[in-house]
Amino acid sequence: MSDPFSVFRHHGGNLSAAVAATGRPRAEWLDLSTGINPRPYPVPPIPANAWTRLPEAAEDAALVAAARAAYGVAQGATVVPAPGTQALIQWLPLLRPRGRVGIVGPTYGEHATAWARAGHAVEDLSRPPAPDEAGAPDVVVVVNPNNPDGRRHDPDALLALAEGQARRGGWLVVDEAFADVAPDVSLCGRAGGPGLVILRSPGKFYGLAGLRLGFAVAGEDVAAPLAANLGPWAVAGPALAVGAAALADLAWRDATRAWLAERRRALDGVLAAAGLTIVGGTDLFRLIEAPDAAARFERLARAGILARPFAYAPRWLRLGLPADDAGLARLAEAMA
Amino acid sequence: MSDPFSVFRHHGGNLSAAVAATGRPRAEWLDLSTGINPRPYPVPPIPANAWTRLPEAAEDAALVAAARAAYGVAQGATVVPAPGTQALIQWLPLLRPRGRVGIVGPTYGEHATAWARAGHAVEDLSRPPAPDEAGAPDVVVVVNPNNPDGRRHDPDALLALAEGQARRGGWLVVDEAFADVAPDVSLCGRAGGPGLVILRSPGKFYGLAGLRLGFAVAGEDVAAPLAANLGPWAVAGPALAVGAAALADLAWRDATRAWLAERRRALDGVLAAAGLTIVGGTDLFRLIEAPDAAARFERLARAGILARPFAYAPRWLRLGLPADDAGLARLAEAMA
Repeated sequence: MSDPFSVFRHHGGNLSAAVAATGRPRAEWLDLSTGINPRPYPVPPIPANAWTRLPEAAEDAALVAAARAAYGVAQGATVVPAPGTQALIQWLPLLRPRGRVGIVGPTYGEHATAWARAGHAVEDLSRPPAPDEAGAPDVVVVVNPNNPDGRRHDPDALLALAEGQARRGGWLVVDEAFADVAPDVSLCGRAGGPGLVILRSPGKFYGLAGLRLGFAVAGEDVAAPLAANLGPWAVAGPALAVGAAALADLAWRDATRAWLAERRRALDGVLAAAGLTIVGGTDLFRLIEAPDAAARFERLARAGILARPFAYAPRWLRLGLPADDAGLARLAEAMA
Repeated sequence: MSDPFSVFRHHGGNLSAAVAATGRPRAEWLDLSTGINPRPYPVPPIPANAWTRLPEAAEDAALVAAARAAYGVAQGATVVPAPGTQALIQWLPLLRPRGRVGIVGPTYGEHATAWARAGHAVEDLSRPPAPDEAGAPDVVVVVNPNNPDGRRHDPDALLALAEGQARRGGWLVVDEAFADVAPDVSLCGRAGGPGLVILRSPGKFYGLAGLRLGFAVAGEDVAAPLAANLGPWAVAGPALAVGAAALADLAWRDATRAWLAERRRALDGVLAAAGLTIVGGTDLFRLIEAPDAAARFERLARAGILARPFAYAPRWLRLGLPADDAGLARLAEAMA
């Protein structure tokens, strides 16, 4: 039997498909299918020049300085801005000879897709290997905290692994897409050594996924070829302006961390009241496990709420945060 | 002796460097160093969703439909949107085995840089080879009309060359960055066959270089791997919205073609009155040749006018269009 909902099982955020599948108009949906902050950083006025001129080195430098401060990047590390973390995920596999790539999963699917497309042999790992472990892959990819299960990896252990990888000419790629709400796990403050590549993705925490802005934090061994391959003017002028303003606003960041934690606790309350088991998550999304997850996805969809089911884990649903109490009440009602 | 102006000889638009070199504040400059339309398409209001959500397939489709109409793309060809033509220039060399690449020049320098970085053997060509010419390179790159000299290549001859390249498993890449002001040379209406890749760059004609938006027009043989390597959500939400609006506005396009031609004639008048020889150009820029080009560049820079000198052609200066008569008068005075 074909699965009418398969389109939702690979990425969140596909509201057009939800509209097409159900006929419910776009404006009536409560989209909880992503881990994007529903209360975005307020987009400041965009200078006309940001649209009309080629982005210049000074604007790039301002963005990078803001990212360094927001992420606490070590002095010896280089920050490479890109039009979305996805663009970095697409390029990294081209910067190495083909080899073995171990991806700690289940996790965000585009890592495996990109490495495999470039001809690497991709292996699923259930945990990061120990440093210098026999048979470890040339490249290890870890998402920290992990999406969708929120699993956290000890940064000391990851740093030791990166050093082990470097001794063998290998890499450790740490995707910190959700580390804004788990700053204690970030390795940005200890980056810069060879073989360690960290990816940061402001679109999620700042609620600006449409910006297409991402960063690699790495030593020159990876940062230099990455920047050369991305080429000049990689980031759009508006993204440079908005990204720099958002990342420089540390007061907003700190207040937003607290607000997200509060909303996450409220969501947990609704999920618990519905008798659901939370098996993981971060302050930007929760993962629930239920034997009837597919039926629950459909029931929510009939109520105009888009959750995120998973092709590889039919008992899972991921839910992002409703923006307000009204959304939370709507979710509670749909689940009752 | 070191050249204090070398920073300006590789790309236009580096106003920050001009400010740094002279101390003249940014707002006082008349930047004629690019071929970007100085009267940009008016940026429409951006829907909040364009910033906050991941771009969706429907938005991508609207942009592509507008590009198809604006460029008159043949039904059998595929349009691949990208975050700037530069992103396409960076990726194309990775989609082929290493080989010989002939670039018809002198031209925009990033083509040679990208193919060479990817390990191809790059050759300068003074003209496109004849179809099936013995010893022709695996890939031929032509900019039509050419930047900076405005040279136009006959589209029938280029199409025959593309067919010859395809018979040998080769490519013809036609960069039509300035074809909006020379629509008669465009091959978009005859694209879709194997081996022909056309690049379109709305940032220049629409005056929105900061958007970072570009297109490849090609058959599936190139379009499919290009799209796969660019990955999902390649173009930012605001660029999708603004690009679709601009490209769909055919009345603005037609009026702007006429306006640019009129401004170009006015610029030619000023250059002729200054005794300068125009050796080429398009309606978006003019190329002048003068034995004292370096001294003229400096004199203009002292007057706060940034022109574009060339590392490989010290007798050349390229000038974009002043936006209005005041700018034109300022240029005339500085040249007197």
